[in-house]
Amino acid sequence: MIVMGPAFIRSAVREMAGYAPGEQPAPGARVVKLNTNENPFPPSEKVLQALREISSESLRRYPSPRADAFRDVAGKLLGVSPDWIIAGNGSDDLLTIATRTFVAAGGRIAYPDPTYSLYPVLTRLQDAKPVTVAWEKDWALPVAALAASKADVIFLANPNAPSGTFVRPEKIEKLAAAFGGLLLIDEAYVDFADANCLGLVQRHANVVVTRTFSKAYSLAGLRFGYAVAQPQVIAEMMKVKDSYNCDAISQVLATAALEDQEYARRTWEHVKAERQRLSEGLRQMGWEVLPSQANFILAACPGGDGKETYLGLKSQGILVRYFDLPGLKDKVRITVGTVQENNAVLAGVQELAAAEKAA
Amino acid sequence: MIVMGPAFIRSAVREMAGYAPGEQPAPGARVVKLNTNENPFPPSEKVLQALREISSESLRRYPSPRADAFRDVAGKLLGVSPDWIIAGNGSDDLLTIATRTFVAAGGRIAYPDPTYSLYPVLTRLQDAKPVTVAWEKDWALPVAALAASKADVIFLANPNAPSGTFVRPEKIEKLAAAFGGLLLIDEAYVDFADANCLGLVQRHANVVVTRTFSKAYSLAGLRFGYAVAQPQVIAEMMKVKDSYNCDAISQVLATAALEDQEYARRTWEHVKAERQRLSEGLRQMGWEVLPSQANFILAACPGGDGKETYLGLKSQGILVRYFDLPGLKDKVRITVGTVQENNAVLAGVQELAAAEKAA
Repeated sequence: MIVMGPAFIRSAVREMAGYAPGEQPAPGARVVKLNTNENPFPPSEKVLQALREISSESLRRYPSPRADAFRDVAGKLLGVSPDWIIAGNGSDDLLTIATRTFVAAGGRIAYPDPTYSLYPVLTRLQDAKPVTVAWEKDWALPVAALAASKADVIFLANPNAPSGTFVRPEKIEKLAAAFGGLLLIDEAYVDFADANCLGLVQRHANVVVTRTFSKAYSLAGLRFGYAVAQPQVIAEMMKVKDSYNCDAISQVLATAALEDQEYARRTWEHVKAERQRLSEGLRQMGWEVLPSQANFILAACPGGDGKETYLGLKSQGILVRYFDLPGLKDKVRITVGTVQENNAVLAGVQELAAAEKAA
Repeated sequence: MIVMGPAFIRSAVREMAGYAPGEQPAPGARVVKLNTNENPFPPSEKVLQALREISSESLRRYPSPRADAFRDVAGKLLGVSPDWIIAGNGSDDLLTIATRTFVAAGGRIAYPDPTYSLYPVLTRLQDAKPVTVAWEKDWALPVAALAASKADVIFLANPNAPSGTFVRPEKIEKLAAAFGGLLLIDEAYVDFADANCLGLVQRHANVVVTRTFSKAYSLAGLRFGYAVAQPQVIAEMMKVKDSYNCDAISQVLATAALEDQEYARRTWEHVKAERQRLSEGLRQMGWEVLPSQANFILAACPGGDGKETYLGLKSQGILVRYFDLPGLKDKVRITVGTVQENNAVLAGVQELAAAEKAA
């Protein structure tokens, strides 16, 4: 039964379901939580140090509206001037800002399918038409079909979620060159990959790259991300964002996190090594695991029933993510955790298989 | 000269200027800063205590998507169930969410004029038509004209900015009853006033009240606000907000601030007493000061040149706000500060008057 809201609600909103975030168990609950792609390691000690030094005065006053100190540090690290960067309240904020900057009501937003389930929600919220283009064989980028989509914006998650698959920047550059609209490359998971698309921004005015601190810097609780594009594009996105969209604490902590590259890189190397080990372990038990360049893997269970596997692991206190969507029903998405957490997954899967056999 | 952005920018965005936040001097700069309506007192000790107790784990994990713990505490304080409340990344976030929930492209947004200069920006961003209705004599609410505006949404700041004037809830209730669209009452400054409109929410499904922690709780740097409305309205706004719009730290600190009502009230009483003293002091020097129920005053300078006064005070290291807008050019807006800060304003104004006389 659909309960309709009052008449003063926009019909596009009234008729939609909204985005469903992954389950968050209560703080302190004893679960192996591998369903929302957090980094398994705590944030850098330098972030915690910066947190302890937050002054009462920086809470009392409005923050820098454009996160100036962060942009200075990020610009130096990325080799661009600060006016190539806009900060956001998580990269979701930047995706919302981009939608509102580049797409009018009645416009078109294209994306390969399946992908991050927020894109259809943003499309609907903007009263735009979604243009979904199926991935080619082995999750290859459908360059020609996307370029011909007549969309105002293409959203491209790279690495893709929930597949974890990666498209080489050279191939994405072909799309950027062939496409007349704005190509947004959502690099939420890129620090776990072998390459990135930052170079494309220099050569293509119609490319925006978004990043987040939620995964690579262990700061999902902080809500901080940024986008990189040419200055005339950033200037337009600045008009659309809320005036003070990033709070004073997140600006300082994100800057501290970015400055400790050495620590962050160690967490990425761990995740990559464990991703390999977890994938191999599952394959040995008959699973099909997609080659991932993210901090999670998408894997098809031998029995072909992703929901059953999700529920079976959940009953063992292991949370993974199941998507009740075409092409994903035989699979679960598993965040790469610590050695212990990944061992728990492998043992849990083995237990499920043994129970299956005994039944 | 207007530099047009690239073609893939929405024309509504390309052609607009964007909202201009008040000047923020560099941290540590020696100014008396009375231009952006911050509370002159630091946040409660309990907020600082909560900040010191933030765990590394709460930074690593995604926060509560709906700020559940905050909504529980706020609900108890306000006497409503938590599903009457939505939290936002500052009340600006809630104004953006409301605009996108209640107004489709081509819709209409009405507001009394002059008022908070963000409303026209939000209107334009949504490709909606602004309907500005002049305040009646002595800043009285133009009930009939607003009710007849055929708008989807009315934005009503109460107390109003930048005037500081207040409309009694009984009068606003007449508008809520007569109006078929959504009435958003922006109560950013209401804790400094004699009454509020929370009662209207109980009786009118088309009323949303927004609040912020930026002024009343000395937490402008934190970005946290909330809205109160009937549950079926809140449910629709929940679909429009970013999934994780409030970070883990702000949820905890805002909850701690709300729980220390005694401290917050002491700051409000100080501001009210000083507002009275500052207003009287200026009146004695020939200024016309509007009766304010906010934490700032809007005052017309004897010479009639608000910009000159703004610049004169600035040259003395005192920052106030000047609006280059019809009806406001003879005035400046002054945030009520500490006793020392307000004394500095009074001395500064006296000095300007003496210099004027000598010239």
